[in-house]
Amino acid sequence: MDTPTALLDMNRMQRNILRMQRQADALGVSLRPHVKTHKCSEVVSAQMAAGARGITVSTLKEAEYFFTQGIHDILYAVAMAPHKLPQALALRRQGCALTLITDSLAAAQAIVDFGQLHGETFAVLIEIDCDGHRSGVKPQDPLLLEIARLLHEGGMLAGVLTHAGESYGLDTPEALQAIAEQERARCVAAAEAIRDTGLPCPQVSVGSTPTALSAVSLEGVTELRAGVYVFFDLVMHNIGVCRQDELALSVLTTVIGHQPEKGWIITDAGWMAMSRDRGTQSQKQDFGYGQVCTEAGEVIEGLLLGSANQEHGVAWFSDAAVSVVEQFALGTRLRILPNHACATGTQFDSYSALLPNGEIQVWERLRGW
Amino acid sequence: MDTPTALLDMNRMQRNILRMQRQADALGVSLRPHVKTHKCSEVVSAQMAAGARGITVSTLKEAEYFFTQGIHDILYAVAMAPHKLPQALALRRQGCALTLITDSLAAAQAIVDFGQLHGETFAVLIEIDCDGHRSGVKPQDPLLLEIARLLHEGGMLAGVLTHAGESYGLDTPEALQAIAEQERARCVAAAEAIRDTGLPCPQVSVGSTPTALSAVSLEGVTELRAGVYVFFDLVMHNIGVCRQDELALSVLTTVIGHQPEKGWIITDAGWMAMSRDRGTQSQKQDFGYGQVCTEAGEVIEGLLLGSANQEHGVAWFSDAAVSVVEQFALGTRLRILPNHACATGTQFDSYSALLPNGEIQVWERLRGW
Repeated sequence: MDTPTALLDMNRMQRNILRMQRQADALGVSLRPHVKTHKCSEVVSAQMAAGARGITVSTLKEAEYFFTQGIHDILYAVAMAPHKLPQALALRRQGCALTLITDSLAAAQAIVDFGQLHGETFAVLIEIDCDGHRSGVKPQDPLLLEIARLLHEGGMLAGVLTHAGESYGLDTPEALQAIAEQERARCVAAAEAIRDTGLPCPQVSVGSTPTALSAVSLEGVTELRAGVYVFFDLVMHNIGVCRQDELALSVLTTVIGHQPEKGWIITDAGWMAMSRDRGTQSQKQDFGYGQVCTEAGEVIEGLLLGSANQEHGVAWFSDAAVSVVEQFALGTRLRILPNHACATGTQFDSYSALLPNGEIQVWERLRGW
Repeated sequence: MDTPTALLDMNRMQRNILRMQRQADALGVSLRPHVKTHKCSEVVSAQMAAGARGITVSTLKEAEYFFTQGIHDILYAVAMAPHKLPQALALRRQGCALTLITDSLAAAQAIVDFGQLHGETFAVLIEIDCDGHRSGVKPQDPLLLEIARLLHEGGMLAGVLTHAGESYGLDTPEALQAIAEQERARCVAAAEAIRDTGLPCPQVSVGSTPTALSAVSLEGVTELRAGVYVFFDLVMHNIGVCRQDELALSVLTTVIGHQPEKGWIITDAGWMAMSRDRGTQSQKQDFGYGQVCTEAGEVIEGLLLGSANQEHGVAWFSDAAVSVVEQFALGTRLRILPNHACATGTQFDSYSALLPNGEIQVWERLRGW
């Protein structure tokens, strides 16, 4: 294998998939994985085989791609922009059970108008803001009921959805359990508020990897969404929902030089391979651009990819007492665990999947919009 | 055009190309643009048409690609890893005048041995460390002469090369001029040290966009290298080598929602479009994930892309007194100037090039390794 290469450890990935599926099963909800993390057909197949019902996507291009791969039940979980409606219509007309989301009257009206014009009844979830993180309508906001009524009158109201993005800022089991409960309670409250006006609200969809793995009850919820759990990463490790030896994605790199006096090991994994993601910078442990491991995947304690240029990654030990030239000779291969699997994955056009039998398969990855 | 899309303003790009070419001409050196910034055949053509002699690449894949596009004189400016030598050999055998670089005896020996085994005389530059930034041998280090002798005995010594990466940390004309002079002086000193032992050192190659544009004299230098000048970006603007209205690359995005109480505008340009690069974070002005402009490209003062998730970018004004829902209605198109053109460009498979006559051309971009 040339370097840099994106390696996927199949054993770890499979364990991660089963762990989340068991969690959804135990909580009595269906699981709809977010495929934006991997954008890979083989990974989706493993998630579906384990029991996932449908997928979540972050772009309509993902929806188109995975629909051609045989996935019919697809949730596009970014607020629908009116100019993208023709693309959504084309998918529906091909038989894709595509669900859209919205958090405004303007977009809801555009969806209803466009659907009526073209004789298409879109399925639409109203996005709920459960933690002030990003988008969505607050459960108690009268706007929620206005949007619900508008969609219902168009025959397009499918339910409510939320994502507790603020869970990424937490790192104790207690805080994670509390935000998982907040995510559940506020999304269910929104559904109840809609039902209280006499409208139906069949779907109640919640999730993020930290809350999904921390929830104790999902009463009132119908489905769970999560993405990065399939690979995990150093950000998730810092949050406390996985161990380092559960990370399925790493970048294989080669030592291409040294600065012996400084204890620097120069590798061919720069930010073009790792991405510019510095998600652990503000967490309890800053891993720089990644945690360095041996070629076999064992963590080398204290050795981080401290800085990155486009095609150069510079690694050094926190205590610089090691003679790096001898221990990490030119040509040595190393693996680097990434801060953020979604961002690192997208730097590559394919993964090299390490199968349990030792075989390596090249799995393609979707990109772009 | 769908969004997000990477837009290239051809007028600006052409002016940037001419500015750097004039600088190289005025200083009496040849210009070898670093194509890692754009990885695009049409952009290379514009650089060559303006007078560039050969190109610099950051991967052998770039070398292979641009060689098939008719560029013969190619410098691979990352320390040669021995396992990549067969790829370099194949390029040389096809007629590519590929130059390699090294900064260690181990790699130099590997190059000479491999070349002799296959009857190929590689052209190799020794990388000089002029500022402690990353790789390279210090001009006064006896190792320099050992590497030079080894390469010379193999018939492969082509000269010396340096890159003042530390120039990115400066932002005054005086400091930039000083580091440009340091880059020149130390690289020329390395060449002189080699020549003093009786060995030839024909090529003396220096450059980075900030130093290239700040150099007053390049006496003793034979060629100048620079990359990001072709598009410029907010990092370069903060360093002080370009104005905001000289930035040729921007991301076209659509408003997909709001949080009116917070003054947030939600766009479909998240980090998947902008990249995770936060290069302006440590500079004199932090632009978040980018400076927001109108669709026509006029800077909207005070409006920055403050945060980014995968497919969501959130913009807000530094003073939140603006009613964003009315001024930036759903569906409004905006352009965002990036922190780092190399990182943002790589998020896209193509550019939409805005030609002076109003035509839009799709220009493909190389990716991967």
